[in-house]
Amino acid sequence: MNEGVGETSYANNSLLQKKVITLTKPITVSAMTDLYSTLSPTKICIADLGCSSGPNTLFVVSELIKTVVRLHKKLGQQNESPEFLVLLNDLPGNDFNTIFKSLLPNFQENLRQELGHGFGHCFVTAAPGSFYGRLFPSQTLHFVHSSYSLQWLSQVPERLEENKGNIYMASTSPPNVLEAYFNQFQKDFSYFLKCRGEELMTGGRMVLTFLGRKSDDPSSKEGCYIWELMALALNDMVTEGLIEEEKLNSFNIPQYTPSPAEIKSVVERDGSFIINRLEVSKVNWDAYENEICYSSEITKDRGYNVAKLMRAVAEPLLASHFGKSIIDEMFRRYREIVADRMAKERTEFFNVVVSMTKRV
Amino acid sequence: MNEGVGETSYANNSLLQKKVITLTKPITVSAMTDLYSTLSPTKICIADLGCSSGPNTLFVVSELIKTVVRLHKKLGQQNESPEFLVLLNDLPGNDFNTIFKSLLPNFQENLRQELGHGFGHCFVTAAPGSFYGRLFPSQTLHFVHSSYSLQWLSQVPERLEENKGNIYMASTSPPNVLEAYFNQFQKDFSYFLKCRGEELMTGGRMVLTFLGRKSDDPSSKEGCYIWELMALALNDMVTEGLIEEEKLNSFNIPQYTPSPAEIKSVVERDGSFIINRLEVSKVNWDAYENEICYSSEITKDRGYNVAKLMRAVAEPLLASHFGKSIIDEMFRRYREIVADRMAKERTEFFNVVVSMTKRV
Repeated sequence: MNEGVGETSYANNSLLQKKVITLTKPITVSAMTDLYSTLSPTKICIADLGCSSGPNTLFVVSELIKTVVRLHKKLGQQNESPEFLVLLNDLPGNDFNTIFKSLLPNFQENLRQELGHGFGHCFVTAAPGSFYGRLFPSQTLHFVHSSYSLQWLSQVPERLEENKGNIYMASTSPPNVLEAYFNQFQKDFSYFLKCRGEELMTGGRMVLTFLGRKSDDPSSKEGCYIWELMALALNDMVTEGLIEEEKLNSFNIPQYTPSPAEIKSVVERDGSFIINRLEVSKVNWDAYENEICYSSEITKDRGYNVAKLMRAVAEPLLASHFGKSIIDEMFRRYREIVADRMAKERTEFFNVVVSMTKRV
Repeated sequence: MNEGVGETSYANNSLLQKKVITLTKPITVSAMTDLYSTLSPTKICIADLGCSSGPNTLFVVSELIKTVVRLHKKLGQQNESPEFLVLLNDLPGNDFNTIFKSLLPNFQENLRQELGHGFGHCFVTAAPGSFYGRLFPSQTLHFVHSSYSLQWLSQVPERLEENKGNIYMASTSPPNVLEAYFNQFQKDFSYFLKCRGEELMTGGRMVLTFLGRKSDDPSSKEGCYIWELMALALNDMVTEGLIEEEKLNSFNIPQYTPSPAEIKSVVERDGSFIINRLEVSKVNWDAYENEICYSSEITKDRGYNVAKLMRAVAEPLLASHFGKSIIDEMFRRYREIVADRMAKERTEFFNVVVSMTKRV
């Protein structure tokens, strides 16, 4: 992700991710309602994995806390609501200082104002590290949430040499490339489930939202199109001699956009979780679609909006491989290609949400 | 504290604080040995309050973990050592990003190398906030440590108008000033004990080291001399018209250097803790005393070393009250005054350590 709070930063280009969180909120809230109704813990430990540092950080956590406190009041309990321990996780490079200095005071003030009397203690801590590994002590978590993070793999899959001219799975990728991507996803997601299975207590809940696809075909447009269009821009620049062909051939995005069936199969093989819900939803590539037009620049040029979103997410990966010098030009071309396609067809991201309970 | 890693930063001027931690290590290690021998928990939750962000961060925690793992092996237990959850606390302005990015990888690698096989999981999290308030969920902590932090008050005491010409308690401070300082200390430390009493589990341990004094007289040289010399430098600058007299009269340091008897009295009134040990030790103002002379500049000019130490700690307080422009000149004068006194008398800081157990 692009750091900081500038024009191309992730913090300023994460409206789409917020839309997805809002879209899946009913599922998250319902899981927390079930948890609280069943276990009624006096301390609730909530982990948000891939919390980032921006307007979306603490957004879901805030909704989860409100859910519990309102339920607590509704059940007519006179004592203070449970204590909350919030564990914010992201990679060690995430800007936790900004969360602590800028976001946390507002978060706590808002909760106090909105919930008023009867809202107990809420402690927020940061737990840095990769979620493809243990992050928390055994059997201490009640609720795990993660949105738009788990499609990122722990590494670029091995043996992608034959994925020439592509930067992700594509309709022209040979079968062994699709297989390498799927194997890496299976390996990573299995280990993720193993770790969370150790950390969650029995009856604990986990709601995960992936950038994914509906189709069973891993190279279908649903999951790959946005990267295929970026590959078009890069290939154009190879043709014009602005990027070396070898550089492009050796670049691949460490992502996998899974289908509901693939997620289900890994969860069942792991065996620690019962799936309660598994659903697919869609959002337009352009998060500003249907938004009121505050800024003419933002809403008129939909290619611009999408290219900015993708730049905020992918610039560090691209810059470290191709060098910083190609970035502006590449995204200028990408913006045009994206705008052209969006004018001709309906372009959407597919979100796969899975809500689970930790078995005994 | 001065931020960053520059010449005048706290991170580069905290050797004295490290010496104090080393000096009190036997007490800390013995408290952890007792805790583990008595409770044998399978998860150990350790909080370090006022952890800072520099070479001292994680130093005590590392010793505590080694103590447990070695004891675990000595007791002939074949299974993995307990899981450790480390909670690093400091104010929200502390540089937690640097802890996560630079200090944590070394910390974990060193533990793994030194302890080898049988060392279980160790999770490190950051919990920002003032320790004069709740920081953690109820009854979740096993061990609390804090060194050279609790002499800082939550605020400058009220009603110090008559402390003219002084910046801290001094031999010339009127009785009501000494009383105001003591009252603020009592109030702050009582609330600290109340909060930790709620957070620690029964049988949990707490080891606190204060910059303090041995004498019963709060205005004795032991606790105040270092600030009295700073007041001399400031008064000189008032005489020369470089600082307004009113500015000096309205400046007071939010610190209290308590005696063992004062600490004991507050702990007993609170009633949640049993005092196991209460001891006083001393360190020379100049942390480089007796150090091998790597840099001639550092060790020859002892006034320089001490002024740098005090600048790292007090510059932000001074600069926000007097303005940045007086800082260099003030510390130049302070350095001379300190050097002169150190040549004539033995100048020492007094450390008061209290080791306690949480009652049933």
